[in-house]
Amino acid sequence: MFNEDRLHNWGRWGPDDEIGTANFITPDAIVAAARLVRRGVVISCAIPLDARGPTYPTRLPPQHLMKRSGADYAAGHPTFGTLPAGGMKFADDYLFAALQCSTQWDALSHAWYGSELYNGVPERVVRNTGAAKLGIEKMYRHFVGRGVLLDLARAINNGDRLAQGHPITPAELDAGVAFARTDVRRGDILLIRTGHVPWYYTLADKSTFWTGAPGLGASTVEWLHRHEVAAVAMDTAAVEVQPAEHGEGLPLHGALLRDLGLTLGELFELDALAADCANDGVYEFLFVGQPLRIPGAVGSPINPLAIK
Amino acid sequence: MFNEDRLHNWGRWGPDDEIGTANFITPDAIVAAARLVRRGVVISCAIPLDARGPTYPTRLPPQHLMKRSGADYAAGHPTFGTLPAGGMKFADDYLFAALQCSTQWDALSHAWYGSELYNGVPERVVRNTGAAKLGIEKMYRHFVGRGVLLDLARAINNGDRLAQGHPITPAELDAGVAFARTDVRRGDILLIRTGHVPWYYTLADKSTFWTGAPGLGASTVEWLHRHEVAAVAMDTAAVEVQPAEHGEGLPLHGALLRDLGLTLGELFELDALAADCANDGVYEFLFVGQPLRIPGAVGSPINPLAIK
Amino acid sequence: MFNEDRLHNWGRWGPDDEIGTANFITPDAIVAAARLVRRGVVISCAIPLDARGPTYPTRLPPQHLMKRSGADYAAGHPTFGTLPAGGMKFADDYLFAALQCSTQWDALSHAWYGSELYNGVPERVVRNTGAAKLGIEKMYRHFVGRGVLLDLARAINNGDRLAQGHPITPAELDAGVAFARTDVRRGDILLIRTGHVPWYYTLADKSTFWTGAPGLGASTVEWLHRHEVAAVAMDTAAVEVQPAEHGEGLPLHGALLRDLGLTLGELFELDALAADCANDGVYEFLFVGQPLRIPGAVGSPINPLAIK
Amino acid sequence: MFNEDRLHNWGRWGPDDEIGTANFITPDAIVAAARLVRRGVVISCAIPLDARGPTYPTRLPPQHLMKRSGADYAAGHPTFGTLPAGGMKFADDYLFAALQCSTQWDALSHAWYGSELYNGVPERVVRNTGAAKLGIEKMYRHFVGRGVLLDLARAINNGDRLAQGHPITPAELDAGVAFARTDVRRGDILLIRTGHVPWYYTLADKSTFWTGAPGLGASTVEWLHRHEVAAVAMDTAAVEVQPAEHGEGLPLHGALLRDLGLTLGELFELDALAADCANDGVYEFLFVGQPLRIPGAVGSPINPLAIK
Repeated sequence: MFNEDRLHNWGRWGPDDEIGTANFITPDAIVAAARLVRRGVVISCAIPLDARGPTYPTRLPPQHLMKRSGADYAAGHPTFGTLPAGGMKFADDYLFAALQCSTQWDALSHAWYGSELYNGVPERVVRNTGAAKLGIEKMYRHFVGRGVLLDLARAINNGDRLAQGHPITPAELDAGVAFARTDVRRGDILLIRTGHVPWYYTLADKSTFWTGAPGLGASTVEWLHRHEVAAVAMDTAAVEVQPAEHGEGLPLHGALLRDLGLTLGELFELDALAADCANDGVYEFLFVGQPLRIPGAVGSPINPLAIK
Repeated sequence: MFNEDRLHNWGRWGPDDEIGTANFITPDAIVAAARLVRRGVVISCAIPLDARGPTYPTRLPPQHLMKRSGADYAAGHPTFGTLPAGGMKFADDYLFAALQCSTQWDALSHAWYGSELYNGVPERVVRNTGAAKLGIEKMYRHFVGRGVLLDLARAINNGDRLAQGHPITPAELDAGVAFARTDVRRGDILLIRTGHVPWYYTLADKSTFWTGAPGLGASTVEWLHRHEVAAVAMDTAAVEVQPAEHGEGLPLHGALLRDLGLTLGELFELDALAADCANDGVYEFLFVGQPLRIPGAVGSPINPLAIK
Repeated sequence: MFNEDRLHNWGRWGPDDEIGTANFITPDAIVAAARLVRRGVVISCAIPLDARGPTYPTRLPPQHLMKRSGADYAAGHPTFGTLPAGGMKFADDYLFAALQCSTQWDALSHAWYGSELYNGVPERVVRNTGAAKLGIEKMYRHFVGRGVLLDLARAINNGDRLAQGHPITPAELDAGVAFARTDVRRGDILLIRTGHVPWYYTLADKSTFWTGAPGLGASTVEWLHRHEVAAVAMDTAAVEVQPAEHGEGLPLHGALLRDLGLTLGELFELDALAADCANDGVYEFLFVGQPLRIPGAVGSPINPLAIK
Repeated sequence: MFNEDRLHNWGRWGPDDEIGTANFITPDAIVAAARLVRRGVVISCAIPLDARGPTYPTRLPPQHLMKRSGADYAAGHPTFGTLPAGGMKFADDYLFAALQCSTQWDALSHAWYGSELYNGVPERVVRNTGAAKLGIEKMYRHFVGRGVLLDLARAINNGDRLAQGHPITPAELDAGVAFARTDVRRGDILLIRTGHVPWYYTLADKSTFWTGAPGLGASTVEWLHRHEVAAVAMDTAAVEVQPAEHGEGLPLHGALLRDLGLTLGELFELDALAADCANDGVYEFLFVGQPLRIPGAVGSPINPLAIK
């Protein structure tokens, strides 16, 4: 059992639970979230999944390779079949990618400390055949619910991106909620905009991007726990502030993924959504951000949608 | 210009259109579709994305590889950072996959005949750097709309899977609509269940699966065109009947993707959805099946959801 | 320490040895082997490294993908630079491959039993970052020496391939040596031809190939140990007879790789070499079969050469 | 036909030739080269094939991934088979790599100008299925012959690495030959040491490495043509000086690969070889640098050996 003096949700949904705070999303919440669709507008929160976007330096950027192209046919590749007009032609492609690349969910099996993951799952079950427990595929029907955008760049920084190393506080989250003229409810998927990811694309020297990032400070853990949000996603590579406030590393990955069972979304693109929300004044929407159903994966690239 | 004696949508949405029948999905249709969410139930139409599922024989099955595992730490891999409890641990993974693997969309750049793709796009623009036009990323905010399930296995075959080589007719589609006690509307995403993909998992000799499949017959092209559906997805590997009714190959890929600009969904898992629909008698729902945002990709694995 | 009643070489070359029987190859042996080059003929023992050849069913076949092709330029891809004649053009490619694919060495870190590998190396050092000990890169200057071909197909079976399941005996190895009119010396790289791999390419149903293979029987372990060969390579996928003589699995991988530290070569192509040897009557040659220098790899595809 | 006013070998070995200057290596030359093995010393000219070494910025560094590790078994993965001692254990791995990564050969299909490659091969045959002509596999029995090291760092620069941007001249090549107290003969594989690649490993900011390199100047083309060497390899990423002397790009790739049919070796590690040669005063040796036998590949990572 988890017996340290830390906030946690271990055992809250039974000893076999593998989805953590996704449990907060109830059928009623989904129905209510669908009612938020009023204009029929769909906004993607994904950056392009390619090598031009930010990839964490320990990982390779995604590589897209064509197995068959249109140019092949011009070069003499034979067509397939007899109909119509002499035969069909096909283009085919492959992708080699880190599952923690581009806009993504961190599975609950992605990070931990000690020798146990969320809910006491022993680390040894995260094997080369994949995570036998807490894999992202356990969420394959999840992250459909009410989304709320906290546009901190507009709410607390005049629309400018938050500075590298800026630790977001509970008061700033509250300011974001106030700016949105709404509230945060149990089961919400919280999108927090800092303006950080779009900055990457403007940088001549991309290494600057990796020297620090705005993000959640340690004091927000209690706030997130109290508000019972289902997931948190941000337009940064690590959600939590970098460098960490105390010591080094990524301590909030431990506090959120491991202690709370709170799934984290990273490298979201929130500028288009924020512009739309600033325009219509509505910061709540139906959010659909299901992962790919990859058994045992510890993450998944996604194309999360805000539907308003 | 497309001047053959064939049904087509070339030019219908302008000379630069790259999304074809996805244009049929209007904001009003999206709002109406969201109103179909009544029970707050989410059902995935994806098979697991792994090597155990069907992969078209010309492609490699997806390969999931762990870069870092929990077992590594037990074996002595160093932790990262100082907090908490001595440092964080991370699992990381990679995927090598055909983008036409598992449950997937065929992009409009996936198949054609002659030297032009949908809307007159020349084949030479589908290059090794990706499809400069008609790539799947052009659909990154699409395939959100009203979904309708035509459960042909139940509607015309007593619940049994349709036979290999069975060409689906317009009358059978109508029977499926009647069985669903609904109608098919402009902009719908049509899911057609044959029961074929689940059969794969039961086969001792998987090669049997690839000797034939039920699917759309040539006579359904006009029906689909007339009903102005936005997309068609099935629980088969090719949507169209295999072997083809006349000659060899995949002629409906030409008629649908290339002539109509109609995106095709393949290897969907429709049994769970069908069981739910049979239970509550409701065959319409909010469908959310957005692709990954991979620039220039000619397909994308997806996790399409029916939300009821 | 290795204290079972089995033949072994643990400790023979010190507690830190990582190359096992490759130690048998001395500088003098290399000089002598080079003297065997009399005709200036080079014969490759590699099958083509592609998806058409045999790949062990638990692995994916190698996938070769072009990143840039000649067809791209015909399709309008820009050239690079100014000289000559308007700019250079480049083709580029990628390979995704199991390192145990095609003609290959099994590293000493590839197989073991108990919790220790050759020379007492604990299994935990074979981590996701690669084999910290006994990786194939430790052999990066090895497998240059005297090669001897034992053409068992000709020596004991009238030139026909040995049957699936045929366990090779010490007497048959001796018959192969006698047929070659030579001897086997300390440090030799032994190539044993059964005719099995070429059969694969003739099969309509490739699954037949994997139902069994001729190969070394258990009684040959002592023979190989006594002759102090540096490595053994065969034209089969597993070197040892399949199915195993007693029980299931691959027991000789334990006896040879783990107990003796004897590196194994698999899926060699020996027909061209055998034809040459039958023609000139010379079954000894300079063998050069160095692996790629991949740190931590547990195997390596190779293109081994016999130089006569 | 090749009718420009340039040095070339088109047609020299017939209209169907695909190996170019590798034709210079005769059986007699191979026999003579083998006689150069006097001490039984094997020296690898390969850098480690991993992500720590230099990878041309347009390509991904090689990625080595374990499919099964020793740590897996400690974590509970089941063993295979019954013998011995309860079952065998296996480690398995995969590699995703550009074939132009690490120490490598550029195939004759790698670079060209105009619309034809070496010997008039049309560029369209370099398709996504691989190079139908001039693929590296055509060389699968080649690059066995006399190697000669020209240690330019010692011969003309007091042992220091040549500066970035230094264009090597014919006089400097002659100085290298004189320093080696030998000659260059028809069919030789020429290894030219600049000391550039080892510098990469010492750099804190790796991007510096890619701002320029010493290499062959344009005036050396005639020298190489006249000496009828079989191949040229260097400890740089592009063999030719960078930036180019006149204009931009890689003009010598056109002059050497395309006009002469001269295969180029890149990212060789020549320091260990040079130290040995400086010690014994012998700069000629048996060189064995066969590529992998990958059909249609436009390059191949290699582990080239100097055997003295």
